[in-house]
Amino acid sequence: MRYAVILAGGSGTRLWPASRRAKPKQLLPLTASGEPLVRAAAAVGAQVSGGRVLIVTSESLLAATREAVPGADLVGEPVGRNTAAAIGLAAAILAARDPDASLVVMPADQHVTDRAGLVRVLAAGLTAAEQQGVIATVGITPTRAETGFGYLELAHAPSTSTAAALAPIPVARFVEKPDRVRAEEFVASGRYLWNAGIFCATAKRLLAELDAHLPAIGSAVREIARNPARAAELYPTMPSISIDHGVMEKAEGVVTVPASVGWDDVGSWAAVPAVHGVDTAGNTVIGEALVIDGAGNVVMSDDATLVATVGVSDLVVIKSGDAVLVIRKDQAQDVRKVIEALSSSGRTRYL
Amino acid sequence: MRYAVILAGGSGTRLWPASRRAKPKQLLPLTASGEPLVRAAAAVGAQVSGGRVLIVTSESLLAATREAVPGADLVGEPVGRNTAAAIGLAAAILAARDPDASLVVMPADQHVTDRAGLVRVLAAGLTAAEQQGVIATVGITPTRAETGFGYLELAHAPSTSTAAALAPIPVARFVEKPDRVRAEEFVASGRYLWNAGIFCATAKRLLAELDAHLPAIGSAVREIARNPARAAELYPTMPSISIDHGVMEKAEGVVTVPASVGWDDVGSWAAVPAVHGVDTAGNTVIGEALVIDGAGNVVMSDDATLVATVGVSDLVVIKSGDAVLVIRKDQAQDVRKVIEALSSSGRTRYL
Repeated sequence: MRYAVILAGGSGTRLWPASRRAKPKQLLPLTASGEPLVRAAAAVGAQVSGGRVLIVTSESLLAATREAVPGADLVGEPVGRNTAAAIGLAAAILAARDPDASLVVMPADQHVTDRAGLVRVLAAGLTAAEQQGVIATVGITPTRAETGFGYLELAHAPSTSTAAALAPIPVARFVEKPDRVRAEEFVASGRYLWNAGIFCATAKRLLAELDAHLPAIGSAVREIARNPARAAELYPTMPSISIDHGVMEKAEGVVTVPASVGWDDVGSWAAVPAVHGVDTAGNTVIGEALVIDGAGNVVMSDDATLVATVGVSDLVVIKSGDAVLVIRKDQAQDVRKVIEALSSSGRTRYL
Repeated sequence: MRYAVILAGGSGTRLWPASRRAKPKQLLPLTASGEPLVRAAAAVGAQVSGGRVLIVTSESLLAATREAVPGADLVGEPVGRNTAAAIGLAAAILAARDPDASLVVMPADQHVTDRAGLVRVLAAGLTAAEQQGVIATVGITPTRAETGFGYLELAHAPSTSTAAALAPIPVARFVEKPDRVRAEEFVASGRYLWNAGIFCATAKRLLAELDAHLPAIGSAVREIARNPARAAELYPTMPSISIDHGVMEKAEGVVTVPASVGWDDVGSWAAVPAVHGVDTAGNTVIGEALVIDGAGNVVMSDDATLVATVGVSDLVVIKSGDAVLVIRKDQAQDVRKVIEALSSSGRTRYL
């Protein structure tokens, strides 16, 4: 049977101060509907899998995640060990439950405007994974020369025919985040798609790949699936490596299904306008806020505190909990500098 | 005897959100020492007057002002009627108490770095007022071509001799806030000083001027001084006019004592660096704040809420009570647009 695996263990410090250790970005209501991102991801997964959703998160976030996605099946990691371990654990648990399980794996902190379109893509990917034994990634048609994403280099450009739109294409190579010049070449070529970190594969195939390339993970996750009490002991022994580096780049038979579904990473505050929407003045205003004489701002208040801006543009101004952040939107990644400064000065209560 | 009259009835909306209806700017600890501005003004006044200080404020601020300046003599106005009425009331009260009273009148929301220097200037002004019957204003030597202040045009430029430094000079004319070109001409000429709104005069002379130019105020303040219970009835009948417009511009025998005492109006957030000081990175940081990669900012938090800025310069970022303001420092006067928007939308709880 089909299962959706939602990866919801991230810490999401780039959305500080809304994103905190106790409430990382996948739990935040950043969509226009006010729905937490993880619930939106679980809803898409449920449509593909007939309702069978397994969310992998950290043990410390189990309660908050359960509240965000009532009724979901959850597993908690005692420590974070990157995506290979998290996906391996999900594959081992589901394979133990159902030896013929096929999985769609999705990060919890993304946003898609065309959910129905993504469901069709994932169904095609699962069919390819089940019938051909491939690993079927989702390749997002680029809408800009983004330097913050990895790319999938395809064996050939996608067909422009509608009939062939969901036909999987072999992946020639995984490409790390490019510089500006290469990103522009990639987008111009039509042969490179964004790697969204979403893919379909059978549990059996995934475990075999782990055994081949990351045997310490393959054996540990099987043991934890058999005996969950050993998680605290075994988890720290696994290498911390991404599924892309650890498996995808080495595996044979990796394909992609192209997708133009309004997908975006919610990687920083700069991405929030695409997710939440923009008003007629060009600002994204969330909560009790007042923007005067300015455009391109992201202004948010999480409670009855008023946030007022006057005469500023392209700024991010976030009031959340006991912190206020003001940062240039085009430098929104630099929020890590605040995290570093707070960590090094011991002001961890703000993290 | 000599008395200091401190005008502390202002609303100070230009320092919103720190300045609120219930706590306007004269009550804020904006100095580096954390002393409220009104207490600093009262301290200077006490030095000149031998401790006889009368603070005129609004009735609604009596308790907060008493807390800020323990032991001060206070009078509360039932409604604000600008400076002519407030000064007239103080003159009438003090004249009833002491027919030979001489007064130094000072706004409560200013800042002076050289308090001893100002005390010397005020003593000279009081002596001139008592011995020659003049109204002796204080003329601040300009340090920039400020367009936000009125100017005093002198009959002749001040002497450069130290011996004559405190000699009063006749005022030829009161000049309203000039445009940039005229302000630069004023400063270059050496014959124009800033009008700080500080002056010395006998109570008798002030009441005589009110009788001559603003008789409705002259009679009302005398009646209120005799019978304070009539204040609520009589105050609203007085015209709302400044002492400059209503009296100074029309009076004969107005002089000025030049002063270079590090004086500044605290008219907006842009003035706070001069009052509070600037750190080595060029930022004015008050309270729990963190400024990364930026200069020329004024960043304040009034409680344990952290305010963090990254990569921004020349901004004002204020967290105070239930509001956050972000505004360009060179447009700090535009905070009135927030006040207007909040008033017109009924969100008066933030005012």
